[in-house]
Amino acid sequence: MKNNKSKIKRVPKRAIYEKKDIYKILDKECLCHVGFIYNGSPIVIPTLYGRKDDLIYIHGASISRMITELEKGIEVSVSMANVNGLVLARSAFHHSVNYESVVLFGKGKLVEENKKNEALKIISDHIIHGRWEECRLPSENELKATKVIEIKIEEISAKVRTGSPIDDQQDYELDYWAGEIPFNKVIGKAIPDNKLKSDINIPESVKNLVGS
Amino acid sequence: MKNNKSKIKRVPKRAIYEKKDIYKILDKECLCHVGFIYNGSPIVIPTLYGRKDDLIYIHGASISRMITELEKGIEVSVSMANVNGLVLARSAFHHSVNYESVVLFGKGKLVEENKKNEALKIISDHIIHGRWEECRLPSENELKATKVIEIKIEEISAKVRTGSPIDDQQDYELDYWAGEIPFNKVIGKAIPDNKLKSDINIPESVKNLVGS
Repeated sequence: MKNNKSKIKRVPKRAIYEKKDIYKILDKECLCHVGFIYNGSPIVIPTLYGRKDDLIYIHGASISRMITELEKGIEVSVSMANVNGLVLARSAFHHSVNYESVVLFGKGKLVEENKKNEALKIISDHIIHGRWEECRLPSENELKATKVIEIKIEEISAKVRTGSPIDDQQDYELDYWAGEIPFNKVIGKAIPDNKLKSDINIPESVKNLVGS
Repeated sequence: MKNNKSKIKRVPKRAIYEKKDIYKILDKECLCHVGFIYNGSPIVIPTLYGRKDDLIYIHGASISRMITELEKGIEVSVSMANVNGLVLARSAFHHSVNYESVVLFGKGKLVEENKKNEALKIISDHIIHGRWEECRLPSENELKATKVIEIKIEEISAKVRTGSPIDDQQDYELDYWAGEIPFNKVIGKAIPDNKLKSDINIPESVKNLVGS
């Protein structure tokens, strides 16, 4: 899915163009940054997402600006990234971060009423698989208040950097410390709501996520 | 700094418009998503940043598309966000995430040659304070290969959600589990580079960050 907009020119060795590898990165996270043009100006909005096949789903209040613009079918760019650590080289120039990032392009499209529930489930499953079956599903009014936008991925690319710093050969003799500082995302224990009825156990979806 | 583009209309109780509070959020992170218009299409690119006063600095290879576009002085939108946990309500509709996010608007401007080093130090200090003094500073050729873009913040707003789920009154009687799943960012121990000379200790900047 490489072409003009998504071809990575800077540090091409970090580029990933295989869809299945890119989707693995997308599926780890739930927050993306959606860019679109509004009144001639660029706007980037952070929002939750779900993915199924070559489709990205985002949702919002029916009257939100992002949603009412995207449902017009306009072009959109979506970006997500994780910083997994700092990479400290001997030279300022070769400092970097370890990361994985995805940038994709497509067009917005409003999900039809009769497919809205299914699309919302895709977002829900993407964030915490199985939760949809363990809660009260949307009422008619709640569905009315919500719109879902489908973005068909037209172009996509990813970049990944891992490992230690790479310095210029002559710099390895310098007396500067070099190495990595890992950033780890840790999923904490589930915190029951204060108002939770006393006889309700932690459900499967939560156990699967927090590993307890 | 509230006006048309940055006024938060959805869930306005989560909005933050005080500059000092917004900057606290911006200063916790180092990765943002930069949106601009290229050939009439929106593009969002993840990149590192630094902040000083009302200025955001980003850098890149002198020939990178993002840099060569932004140095033309075009409009730009910058977004950053942290998901601090999932918020599981009894109803699908009231599911949410705890997060902090910032969206800002401004215009790109190329940092002049004689101020480039200073701007790079701002980015470096933003990511890991004090590191600039503990490494080999950029050579003339390295500076030539790098450009820095300054974005004066013209509009900015933030949103924050914390705490437990809020359900509709009648849903509190339902037999569904509700609560929070915290996501914690943990800074790991520093990993010295394999090729590190044996007599080099972990420097102050790293100790300050990893807390050891």
